[in-house]
Amino acid sequence: MEAVSDSQSTCPPRLVDFAEELAGMAAAVARSYFRTSVSIDTKGDESPVTIADRTAEQRMREAISQRFPDHGVFGEEFGVDNPDADYIWVLDPIDGTKAFITGNPLFGTLVALLHKGRPLLGVIEMPALGERWIGAAGHPSRRRDANGLQDVRVRPCPDLGKAIMRTTSPDMFQGPQAGAYTSLEQACSLTLYGGDCFCYGQLASGFVDLVVESSLKPYDFMAALPVVTGAGAMATDWQGRPLTLDSAGDVLVAGDPAVHARALALLSGKT
Amino acid sequence: MEAVSDSQSTCPPRLVDFAEELAGMAAAVARSYFRTSVSIDTKGDESPVTIADRTAEQRMREAISQRFPDHGVFGEEFGVDNPDADYIWVLDPIDGTKAFITGNPLFGTLVALLHKGRPLLGVIEMPALGERWIGAAGHPSRRRDANGLQDVRVRPCPDLGKAIMRTTSPDMFQGPQAGAYTSLEQACSLTLYGGDCFCYGQLASGFVDLVVESSLKPYDFMAALPVVTGAGAMATDWQGRPLTLDSAGDVLVAGDPAVHARALALLSGKT
Repeated sequence: MEAVSDSQSTCPPRLVDFAEELAGMAAAVARSYFRTSVSIDTKGDESPVTIADRTAEQRMREAISQRFPDHGVFGEEFGVDNPDADYIWVLDPIDGTKAFITGNPLFGTLVALLHKGRPLLGVIEMPALGERWIGAAGHPSRRRDANGLQDVRVRPCPDLGKAIMRTTSPDMFQGPQAGAYTSLEQACSLTLYGGDCFCYGQLASGFVDLVVESSLKPYDFMAALPVVTGAGAMATDWQGRPLTLDSAGDVLVAGDPAVHARALALLSGKT
Repeated sequence: MEAVSDSQSTCPPRLVDFAEELAGMAAAVARSYFRTSVSIDTKGDESPVTIADRTAEQRMREAISQRFPDHGVFGEEFGVDNPDADYIWVLDPIDGTKAFITGNPLFGTLVALLHKGRPLLGVIEMPALGERWIGAAGHPSRRRDANGLQDVRVRPCPDLGKAIMRTTSPDMFQGPQAGAYTSLEQACSLTLYGGDCFCYGQLASGFVDLVVESSLKPYDFMAALPVVTGAGAMATDWQGRPLTLDSAGDVLVAGDPAVHARALALLSGKT
């Protein structure tokens, strides 16, 4: 058991190292099952899950309970342990399970650490692509691949009409959200679908300008927040509020504050 | 200059080898520009194009004119040479340019060879993923990666309600096609967006059951045809006719004949 200091305006490097270890552990499990015949179960919410999801999360939970037994864990597959802890690890062993089960390498492992509800670090690991993005409070975000580690930065894009937007699927926007989303899509230069967590890595690396999604669970977006904000992006919900464990999961991330403001006006209906 | 025999029910292996050489050549160009700052032009049809597209196609055209000067070429970027030749190479140097320019590895290089209008071979090369699918008349389709070459085969899926569909974007279906497409999507178990040519590789390898697209150009689909049919799939237009250079580019590919028949009924309006 290891104690962690309470002063967290800057994330201690050893927590970042440990988060990378967790991501690497889950990635090895995911890779071992990728493009093999895995049996697919359907969860209560109709989303698919496989032995790869479950095994990868179990490995991460075991490692956390050994190293930081007083920390809490909130994982997609096995729920919440110790929810009142100051430190909570938020885990999605395979984000993009639909990509995973169809042999598409655009699936990821997501690891976030919250301190008193605030995201302290996040890792977006792409097991089949051999790359990961790392965000940590007080540090610039970085991308790691076989060639090493490099800082990443969003690109400027002051004009929404020139922005490239990413979203996993337009079908996620229902009811009044569908109209707001459509007006935003029409205002952008281009929208590309698919990708799940990879979209946030693209934005952090300055390849796209906006990521807009809806009704995500905390384990779908928490790891992305430190990655994109540490690369210079603005990340809020569709009303401009911070994204927290209690959010409805309506995500708006933009690399340029001007594009964030224009998109927010369209999504919140305050145009 | 090299002569090619006129008997083409089975594709000669040396043509397959040459097609793989072309794909490898274009892939090296694409990789050298991937995730670098390339200037993006907009073509007449509003699609983006970069120096990577143009250079990759030029390299392939030079190689073809040296090896087979009497063959024709139909490429996305530089049009048609020698359209009356018996043999026509159909080239898309970067299929999925929108993925390419946003740092997304799901872009491909497509190489097809037609003999008297009939697809004789096709290569779907994924430069950033290090894998390619190869289809050739008279041979089972194969997938090559760093570990070697393996036969691929579609999976059985007699029930449309259990089928996983792939399409690059639902926005490609306009007018009366939109309604037909929506009824098909609702009849399937799951639809995943994005992917361009990668979708056909997924189908040939038995990971998805249907690929449906609309208004494609010949260089977008010709290379996929030998790959998917050599893996056991049925590939037609939305009226059940063969896909040719003159087709409108409405593509329906299914791994299982039962799913093809059901999807065709929905798309052709003959339910």
